Amino acid sequence: MNEFELIRQLCANLPVNDSVVIGAGDDCAALDLGLSDTLLLLKTDAVVEGIHYHSDADPARIGRKAINRCLSDIAAMGGVPTAAVITLGLPAKFEFPYVQALYAGLNQAAQDAGVAIVGGETTTNPDRVLISVALIGTLPKTVAAKRTGAQPGDAIFVTGELGGSQAGKHLDFIPRLTEGRWLVQNFDIHAMKDLSDGLAGDLPRLLERTGAGAELLAHAIPISRAARLRAATGSPQPAAANGPTHPPTRPQATRVPGGALGAALADGEDFELLIVLPAKQAVPLLDAWKKEFPALPLTCIGKVRPEPGVTLRDKEGARPLPAHGYVHFE
Amino acid sequence: MNEFELIRQLCANLPVNDSVVIGAGDDCAALDLGLSDTLLLLKTDAVVEGIHYHSDADPARIGRKAINRCLSDIAAMGGVPTAAVITLGLPAKFEFPYVQALYAGLNQAAQDAGVAIVGGETTTNPDRVLISVALIGTLPKTVAAKRTGAQPGDAIFVTGELGGSQAGKHLDFIPRLTEGRWLVQNFDIHAMKDLSDGLAGDLPRLLERTGAGAELLAHAIPISRAARLRAATGSPQPAAANGPTHPPTRPQATRVPGGALGAALADGEDFELLIVLPAKQAVPLLDAWKKEFPALPLTCIGKVRPEPGVTLRDKEGARPLPAHGYVHFE
Repeated sequence: MNEFELIRQLCANLPVNDSVVIGAGDDCAALDLGLSDTLLLLKTDAVVEGIHYHSDADPARIGRKAINRCLSDIAAMGGVPTAAVITLGLPAKFEFPYVQALYAGLNQAAQDAGVAIVGGETTTNPDRVLISVALIGTLPKTVAAKRTGAQPGDAIFVTGELGGSQAGKHLDFIPRLTEGRWLVQNFDIHAMKDLSDGLAGDLPRLLERTGAGAELLAHAIPISRAARLRAATGSPQPAAANGPTHPPTRPQATRVPGGALGAALADGEDFELLIVLPAKQAVPLLDAWKKEFPALPLTCIGKVRPEPGVTLRDKEGARPLPAHGYVHFE
Repeated sequence: MNEFELIRQLCANLPVNDSVVIGAGDDCAALDLGLSDTLLLLKTDAVVEGIHYHSDADPARIGRKAINRCLSDIAAMGGVPTAAVITLGLPAKFEFPYVQALYAGLNQAAQDAGVAIVGGETTTNPDRVLISVALIGTLPKTVAAKRTGAQPGDAIFVTGELGGSQAGKHLDFIPRLTEGRWLVQNFDIHAMKDLSDGLAGDLPRLLERTGAGAELLAHAIPISRAARLRAATGSPQPAAANGPTHPPTRPQATRVPGGALGAALADGEDFELLIVLPAKQAVPLLDAWKKEFPALPLTCIGKVRPEPGVTLRDKEGARPLPAHGYVHFE
């Protein structure tokens, strides 16, 4: 049983109550606690030594990554983050300067996003460091109402460039909070997700709700310089000592394109925004984006289709894209 | 550096923002998100295989414990829990029925408390199971305002009986949500805490805010039958196979009384409520409590004093009680 089958099974029986507007399965849960026009967002995420980062990675960058992963999910909802609590699992013999540096990273990333850290839990996790972050935020109810799911004909956009995670971006990415908020305030965002598991893994999950499919244009996918460099030098190893430990081998390497395009589709941990909105808003979006965020690329990479499944079109035609990014427990 | 020194150091530099009413250090954080008369509570807690439970413990009971620990903190605020998210760290080769049973326990305990589980994160934690729960709830602002901290002369109460954790209660305790809510609605609760680390550890932390001290009456402390039985048979081992793995040895055994009283003071994980309120409310509280909760003992165990430090008075006189319960990372 892999990670996603496990999650699907577990999600089937979760208890709910009247407060739940969006439950398990989306980027964040959304709850109605009686605020007249606002929903509460709730999200948790974790990083584990040796799984999400090498043991010799800079602890301040690890701390930043731990909180920025959660912030990236709030960004994907177009929400505003408010406060976080941290669970820190530590081997019994930890070094205080290391923990201080971890927290310096957590604190800095929180502060950059205007987030308070309001508590936590320290516990022994004898064999390795584990950091679990839970974060709350807010979202206008009007924004949640526009999130109808991907509709056939919708345009698919992505921010930034993809494929650079193994060269270090997985530790140093900036959650797209300002951009996510601006997007939901100014456009009818039907669906949005942060790219944590790779386009080939995340896009099918974004389409799941409405049962739609998509066609991606291979030549349109924005590939990062780091991914091109790694592909050109043929390096199978992370270019930086601080690269992530996963995927140690890419099980889907035989099924998705290799090289730089393969990295952009499947390496995961880009933490860019994957955006679905009505096709008629595509050009206005590109125009407004260039004025608002001139330094950050925004690229239309394909469109939503009524038939399920994701295809990748290149000069040789269209072929199915296997729905795999990084998967725990395969 | 032990756990509490670590936490103190880390708490000194946490980022805050305007939403924070109660930050790190109390049982739960409390946030003002603009609800007219309600604060939001946020709490996280974790259990780790081999630290908080034996590997052969019943997974459904482990799941219950994981969420009930957080619920116990909401109870100690007098709050109402709303929704939870779960981080589940699993070895790569997990057995699905085991995870199903863990979740059955999580779901049941959540449902019993009216709590929705609205998401989570599964990750590899290669060497052992780790469950981190984050929980939100609500609290009337009027209740938070009465929480002024322990004042000299205040009476100290405890619910239930203490010292039974190692005989199994640490897995099967019931969070005192109804009682906590009733207490804050009907009395001027100056301070309240759930007993997770033992009376000898938790009382000093409850007094910290106002710098007060306390005198406990040894003969008044309600000792559980399980603790008396274990002391009578001289069993140094958990009576049940599912007993907690901690404390494997009790480092403070030489400093606090041994036997059943020692267990009641220092074993921890009783998850009863420790309550501080004005002395003039002590008798009305006892009267009202007997009518409202006839099956659950409520005992006055001492009083708050102006001088710092906790003393334990028995027939031989009063002596200082060392401020130790269970401590990670000693």
